[in-house]
Amino acid sequence: MTEQLPPDVIAQLTGLDSAITPELVATSWALLKPFHDKVGYAAPKIDRDRRYGDHERHRLDVHTSGEEAGAPVLVFVHGGGFVGGDKVVPGTPQYDHIGAWAVRNGWVGVTITYRLAPEHTWPSGAQDVAAAVQWVRDNIAAYGGDPGRIVVAGHSAGCVHVASYLAGQGGGTLDGVRGAGLLSGFYQIPDGASRGELEVSYFGDRPSTEVNSLPGLLDSEVPLIFAIAQRDPRFSQGQIVALTEAWFARKGTVPPVIWSEGHNHISQIGSIGVDDLALGAQLARFVNRVTQSSPRGDDPPNPDDRR
Amino acid sequence: MTEQLPPDVIAQLTGLDSAITPELVATSWALLKPFHDKVGYAAPKIDRDRRYGDHERHRLDVHTSGEEAGAPVLVFVHGGGFVGGDKVVPGTPQYDHIGAWAVRNGWVGVTITYRLAPEHTWPSGAQDVAAAVQWVRDNIAAYGGDPGRIVVAGHSAGCVHVASYLAGQGGGTLDGVRGAGLLSGFYQIPDGASRGELEVSYFGDRPSTEVNSLPGLLDSEVPLIFAIAQRDPRFSQGQIVALTEAWFARKGTVPPVIWSEGHNHISQIGSIGVDDLALGAQLARFVNRVTQSSPRGDDPPNPDDRR
Repeated sequence: MTEQLPPDVIAQLTGLDSAITPELVATSWALLKPFHDKVGYAAPKIDRDRRYGDHERHRLDVHTSGEEAGAPVLVFVHGGGFVGGDKVVPGTPQYDHIGAWAVRNGWVGVTITYRLAPEHTWPSGAQDVAAAVQWVRDNIAAYGGDPGRIVVAGHSAGCVHVASYLAGQGGGTLDGVRGAGLLSGFYQIPDGASRGELEVSYFGDRPSTEVNSLPGLLDSEVPLIFAIAQRDPRFSQGQIVALTEAWFARKGTVPPVIWSEGHNHISQIGSIGVDDLALGAQLARFVNRVTQSSPRGDDPPNPDDRR
Repeated sequence: MTEQLPPDVIAQLTGLDSAITPELVATSWALLKPFHDKVGYAAPKIDRDRRYGDHERHRLDVHTSGEEAGAPVLVFVHGGGFVGGDKVVPGTPQYDHIGAWAVRNGWVGVTITYRLAPEHTWPSGAQDVAAAVQWVRDNIAAYGGDPGRIVVAGHSAGCVHVASYLAGQGGGTLDGVRGAGLLSGFYQIPDGASRGELEVSYFGDRPSTEVNSLPGLLDSEVPLIFAIAQRDPRFSQGQIVALTEAWFARKGTVPPVIWSEGHNHISQIGSIGVDDLALGAQLARFVNRVTQSSPRGDDPPNPDDRR
């Protein structure tokens, strides 16, 4: 059944200032929570705080129904401006709702957290995604997941970390990673004074040429799907413009982008489970397509066309 | 219920050469037809060949259940390279399936045909769309449609005509037009020798500055939604790139674009009714949003954001 938010809630979500502020976070989640309460945002089984590394923040939760066997695995990486956020935000559905949605779709869900800036800087995020994915390879069969059918998705700063991992910036391998969802992140940042405060806390003054993930994404053999929210702020919107130009120059097509109608930067990830047509339905379609029982789900070759 | 095509059919559709040829049309529809047969592609009532003008091709069909009252009206304009196509293509679901889908969504469906090139040239397509919309204003209440809640959608050459109408190239008015769907068309063409044969048949050698719809679309107060198919040919893909750049420069956001995963130029419009997540579900969401009972469904103002 397709869940859909009522028009008055959409109007409120889209009417908020688009800047990513604590107010946007609080107001958006307050609007969404009743719908999550109704749908339910806890998978039947949640194994909390499995350790995927030595640091206190190297923790992840595994969400299952208890009945999975050889199921695809969705690994989700939260946002928080590089300096905050967590896999569970008490009093809100974050981000158990992603695990619950994964299980409803027949997959195993894994929600991770990771080391934060300013104490930990680039490429710690990519390293942590790589380590979490390795933990999944090593351990997920016991939960009924298939280590050869992993999809990694990240939102906001989490998207930046996933992109960074895909671009090879954090080491590790891509074995078993059948696809990745890059949700309202960024793929290149300016140098110098234009760099925002949160970006400086994580990237420092490392040159863009060192930290940008876009070149690596263009080279990636892992199928990707991007998302942008209707009311994402200008900086995020511009990332899709730059991505589109670079992707077309390289591949002759537009990149796969889900446009999340009726949502802002925060409510976009909050829409999972309660407003399927904004993001979740297409993301699920992608996950199911790339985890089909075949080798890495590459797109068919794109023959030269006559125009 | 969400209709979805099986993966093997998607694989075949996406494996075809992307060029828009009779072979693409025939093969795509052959793959889709069994699914349309199963879902059904005829609305309960179809009033055929209502005349919206003096020319033999000024004909449209009205699709209803017979129970509509004050319903939104979806007007659909088919493609065919400016020189062909029709609202009904015998032996295929085209394009009754659009009317049937409209009715299942609670709207009145109107499928039109129009004058063709080379006999009729720019701006005849826009003029015919304008005339058909006027007919709808004057007559649709008798079918249970609301003349103040019209959405116009076009595919391929039909999309070009709708864009042209929206840009004011065909006269008429936009009264009651609450939104428009622009599906795999183009919004600017090159001058001179780069112009394709079919474009020459319709546009002749009129300068791009005269015939391009993109500037008018950027100025449009009518909410728009675009679509591009994963396997649309390069020229069509490039249109979305140019649109994205121009839209962002004007509005600071990406344009609303539905990316039709798993489909080629032809199967994209054929997916309506049988593969909801490719195009139909999001298009329906758009239609319902813009035809809500309020003045023209404009997006909320986009406050300046800090980044």
